[in-house]
Amino acid sequence: MKGGTARGHANHERVRHEMRPLKELIPFPEALRMAVDLVRPIERKENVALLDALRRVASTAVRSKIDVPLVDRAAMDGYAVVARDTSGARTSKPVVLRRIETIHAATVPRKRVKPGSCSEVATGATLPPGADAVVRVEDTERDGNIVRIFVPVRPGISVAAKGSDIRRGSLVVGPGDSLTPAKIGALAAIGLDRVRVYERPRVAILTTGNEVVPPGQPIRAGQVYDINSNTIATVVRENGGEPILLGRVADRPDTLRSSLKKALANDLVVCSGGSSVGEKDIVVDVLRTMGDVLFHGVAVRPGKPTALAHVDGIPVLGMPGFPTSCLSNCYVILAPMLRRMARLPPAQHRVVEVPLGKRIDRATGRLEFHTVRIADGKAVSAFKESSAITSMAHADGYIEIPADVDRIEAGEIVRVTLF
Amino acid sequence: MKGGTARGHANHERVRHEMRPLKELIPFPEALRMAVDLVRPIERKENVALLDALRRVASTAVRSKIDVPLVDRAAMDGYAVVARDTSGARTSKPVVLRRIETIHAATVPRKRVKPGSCSEVATGATLPPGADAVVRVEDTERDGNIVRIFVPVRPGISVAAKGSDIRRGSLVVGPGDSLTPAKIGALAAIGLDRVRVYERPRVAILTTGNEVVPPGQPIRAGQVYDINSNTIATVVRENGGEPILLGRVADRPDTLRSSLKKALANDLVVCSGGSSVGEKDIVVDVLRTMGDVLFHGVAVRPGKPTALAHVDGIPVLGMPGFPTSCLSNCYVILAPMLRRMARLPPAQHRVVEVPLGKRIDRATGRLEFHTVRIADGKAVSAFKESSAITSMAHADGYIEIPADVDRIEAGEIVRVTLF
Repeated sequence: MKGGTARGHANHERVRHEMRPLKELIPFPEALRMAVDLVRPIERKENVALLDALRRVASTAVRSKIDVPLVDRAAMDGYAVVARDTSGARTSKPVVLRRIETIHAATVPRKRVKPGSCSEVATGATLPPGADAVVRVEDTERDGNIVRIFVPVRPGISVAAKGSDIRRGSLVVGPGDSLTPAKIGALAAIGLDRVRVYERPRVAILTTGNEVVPPGQPIRAGQVYDINSNTIATVVRENGGEPILLGRVADRPDTLRSSLKKALANDLVVCSGGSSVGEKDIVVDVLRTMGDVLFHGVAVRPGKPTALAHVDGIPVLGMPGFPTSCLSNCYVILAPMLRRMARLPPAQHRVVEVPLGKRIDRATGRLEFHTVRIADGKAVSAFKESSAITSMAHADGYIEIPADVDRIEAGEIVRVTLF
Repeated sequence: MKGGTARGHANHERVRHEMRPLKELIPFPEALRMAVDLVRPIERKENVALLDALRRVASTAVRSKIDVPLVDRAAMDGYAVVARDTSGARTSKPVVLRRIETIHAATVPRKRVKPGSCSEVATGATLPPGADAVVRVEDTERDGNIVRIFVPVRPGISVAAKGSDIRRGSLVVGPGDSLTPAKIGALAAIGLDRVRVYERPRVAILTTGNEVVPPGQPIRAGQVYDINSNTIATVVRENGGEPILLGRVADRPDTLRSSLKKALANDLVVCSGGSSVGEKDIVVDVLRTMGDVLFHGVAVRPGKPTALAHVDGIPVLGMPGFPTSCLSNCYVILAPMLRRMARLPPAQHRVVEVPLGKRIDRATGRLEFHTVRIADGKAVSAFKESSAITSMAHADGYIEIPADVDRIEAGEIVRVTLF
């Protein structure tokens, strides 16, 4: 039981201060609640072009300054008529009207429709004065200017009335609305080409560790590529945030402190590496000198060595260096924080229920997000170890295993949350 | 029954050529199949930076040129040992080893671990030669260089073996893989900072209609703002495509023909307006002179006056001018076309099953995608008319009503596909 090793080892701390194990693990739900409570929705606003506003969050109530349609318009190709003229019309006894004008969509009617007359209208054409309905072309026949009407229409039929889509003064989008294609369409309909939205939360991303090298450069024994900056940044993007990549920081308290100070110019700081036990504890040690460490160590697997701090009013999330631990935490802790900041609803991951293909045995003591892939309709463990990114990259999703469960049998139905 | 008006009116065509109704409606499933069959997955490839590759589709098998880890590494803080030295170790009778070196994550071991000795290792440190396991710091005690080991370990314990995450030569991403944060992490792990992906399908968007004005400019009676360019473009973006906005084209055959010719430089052309009956038929008329019109008129509501053509090998989708008809078609016809071109799996819209709040009556004859909003756990019709963008903008999703159903009673459970 990995979660239970703390008790007997307090006495080792005096021997090797820099290699102390995590003393207390807080339950995952509590860690999550603290993390989400620590962030605040972004208040800053910006104007963006309509097409760039897709899935952004409107910050301001937008009311229409015009009626949509601007005027009464024909909703069908046909003839604009005085409705009462058509009373009693039928195929065997059509009503005969005189065509006085033809109105295309973009032209403006010049003649008034009086009883006994009609104007030919294209869909979208402005309804001429005097007319109060449109008879569809299918229900008519014409010879020259003589139009035979085969059906009666009531006032308003086949007319898109002024303001019937959007009334002048009415609310088109409200603050907090996510801008779907349809809402962007409604903003276009009222003539706007820009819209005011909340800014995206700016998330500073720091990687600690002298051994970490950015991809694209050669490495040697003792070095590893920086995986976490990339996975954190992509999860930030997927959850409405803007990643600010600050790169690698050397494992020295003074360097780390000055990098963290710069990072605090953003809305949230995410460090990876350096929150595990051992010498890399300097991240948490430095954070303690700069502000409050709210927790360090979460009863979750993977992702135990996770820390949350509050420095100069800015939340700082200390992620484990192991790439699968870090990415798992990104999904289960960072994403909910981000979505609150970005004012987005909780992520809607698809969940599938499938039988487990092969028994999973594990140590109890911590809630586990166990990655699986789905093959032949069954969930199969994809988890290798927290240090292996392929534990995530070869997985389709994860199952949640409660802290007190030590085995799931093959054939049991499991709920897989898909990435 | 709107779908059934064609029969009796063929004789009107000679009277008014420019106002002919759609002659034949093809069933929606057939239209959809034809549209999706007409497009081809994009073959062009491009290299993109890792962070910009999120949710892009890998075009090429990527095999690792390195082992990850590059060498055997400590998976825990502790002591690198010769495993058989620890045989029989227990708290009451620890095995005593001599510490010969301390290895940090980024440093390279200089000494060989021989029986009776050990090296202190931080998580991630290169395993020193001679050692084959790591004893966790929690299971040890140290005074100076004397290390007491309280538990036995087997070879390989707490060691991340060279290549155990990603073996040199193994497949990291395959062609067609959607690049999730985890897959981007795996590409970073093997040292790549760019990745080869399929290009996004380029979709030319044209709006026809002399009455259409781009948002941001003033309008007068007889004019409307261009809604469709915006809604089409955002749906294109959401489904892996790149919108190329070509703006408004006047309703003149020669202008339209030359605009369409330019648009054919892209992978797909979407026109809006001009595929209805009436004078605006010029789009379909022009398309007939340029290539094959596969269908014109679909038994669907909204969205009936939709056309599909094939010109110089490029699919051209003619969308209705009514904004709700156009956007509904974007979801049900354009998106599946795009996702095939972009090699994305079918869109995963969430579906909820809720009771209908208020009876819906309608004319039979066409399959209907009827927009609804969800209020107090019930679906309520949001549909006003096809010309009203608020039929979509005030909706949360749609229900599918089969062609032969004329009523859904309040309280009936309906499946709502959410936008």
